[in-house]
Amino acid sequence: MILVTNDDGVYSPGIISLSKVLSKVAEVKVVAPKGAQSSSGMSITFHRPVRISSVKLKNYEATAIGGTPADCVFVSVHKLVKRKNIDMIVSGINIGGNISMQSFFSSGTVSAAMSGCVIGIKAVAFSKEISSEDEYLTEKEFENSAWWAGRIVSYLMKKGFPPGVDLLNVNFPVKTTKTTPVRLTKMAGEMFDDYVVERKDPRGNKYFWLAGTKKVKAEPGTDLFTVLTRSEISITPIGIGSIQPQESSSPELFFRELLG
Amino acid sequence: MILVTNDDGVYSPGIISLSKVLSKVAEVKVVAPKGAQSSSGMSITFHRPVRISSVKLKNYEATAIGGTPADCVFVSVHKLVKRKNIDMIVSGINIGGNISMQSFFSSGTVSAAMSGCVIGIKAVAFSKEISSEDEYLTEKEFENSAWWAGRIVSYLMKKGFPPGVDLLNVNFPVKTTKTTPVRLTKMAGEMFDDYVVERKDPRGNKYFWLAGTKKVKAEPGTDLFTVLTRSEISITPIGIGSIQPQESSSPELFFRELLG
Repeated sequence: MILVTNDDGVYSPGIISLSKVLSKVAEVKVVAPKGAQSSSGMSITFHRPVRISSVKLKNYEATAIGGTPADCVFVSVHKLVKRKNIDMIVSGINIGGNISMQSFFSSGTVSAAMSGCVIGIKAVAFSKEISSEDEYLTEKEFENSAWWAGRIVSYLMKKGFPPGVDLLNVNFPVKTTKTTPVRLTKMAGEMFDDYVVERKDPRGNKYFWLAGTKKVKAEPGTDLFTVLTRSEISITPIGIGSIQPQESSSPELFFRELLG
Repeated sequence: MILVTNDDGVYSPGIISLSKVLSKVAEVKVVAPKGAQSSSGMSITFHRPVRISSVKLKNYEATAIGGTPADCVFVSVHKLVKRKNIDMIVSGINIGGNISMQSFFSSGTVSAAMSGCVIGIKAVAFSKEISSEDEYLTEKEFENSAWWAGRIVSYLMKKGFPPGVDLLNVNFPVKTTKTTPVRLTKMAGEMFDDYVVERKDPRGNKYFWLAGTKKVKAEPGTDLFTVLTRSEISITPIGIGSIQPQESSSPELFFRELLG
């Protein structure tokens, strides 16, 4: 069974297109945030109760959770479905790319997938780059990306994941067709020239807007280069276990004066 | 200069104790969330403005941000201090351990540190295990942990970080003294037997509480074993670049049928 979630909310055209395609690959259970939860990271709601409701979408029933993407995985695994029955968590298709480490760790879409990985469930995060932050996409515009998502997930359902890989971070370019090339990539480090805008409210008090513009320069082989410069599909394989550096760096030796 | 932040908020005894000690090591700038932001993950506030205010604490001035720990780093780096002047981001001392991957990725304390790493600033996250979730600690109870934090940070300011290491995740046991042994550890995978409690509100509508109890079993060499079973201090070195698995797993070969 595939657990489908996202961070744009249960009514997003991205998750509707994705669910439609994946329901042809395997049994699908859709559990997604009630409202938009972009940039939520792996935030979990421990300090207030979380509401749950059934939502009837076009062709399927979904469960809406009044919380974050990580909450959706948490509630699913512990209340709605048997953990051992979940073959994979698929998150997306996000409206907007989740490219570079900067986006990776703060993305709700990716964090939903990571929430699975930390408890041993393999996962895929799908995101589609958009041409403007204000763009409203329709289901139609996710059609080709969803087709690719179906292909990738059915490939993984048959073959499993490569050794050492817990999660695939997949990003589609603005214009994705059924013949767009697919590349294996590494995550770029930074993607944004972040900035902070300072304003004053009508009472004269200062406030800030956090913002960022996309960088133009990108190293070949990165997700940034592949999706933004080349307009190709990028698959970045992630192994969360290897976030701890290998023995070769000899931290024991480095820290010897501190260690008891 | 050391940028100090946390997720328990600017008034937490953990950050007050930490800042006091670190101000003897280097110049310190404290920028922390106005209120508690536990389990915020690397959530960033893009969809509403963020307030900022100056706060006078016992022995120093701090900046309070009406947002998440990641927001604090974002605003600091782009508005309050010159990025190139920041030697290190130090986050904590958190009230409660951030042990195992399950806590690591959802922790606001760790995510503040990681927010630095993704833009190339080295970081340390300090957390102190507590004996009960409801415990209210005072500055006094952070004294020994803060002493160790000062030792570790001044060690890093002198020697830099080991090769391949971007972040240290440091956890102190409930009882920490100046002679508590320090161990280099790996992160445990899971730490919690999570569960979801179902209740009904006065109008008969269902809601959930997300919760977890700590696991008792722990593998030797993990942070979980070191802090909870052995009551020793754990340092887990993290290299965020290595979250992408090494060549040896040959994902190219694995995906060859998909790649264009």
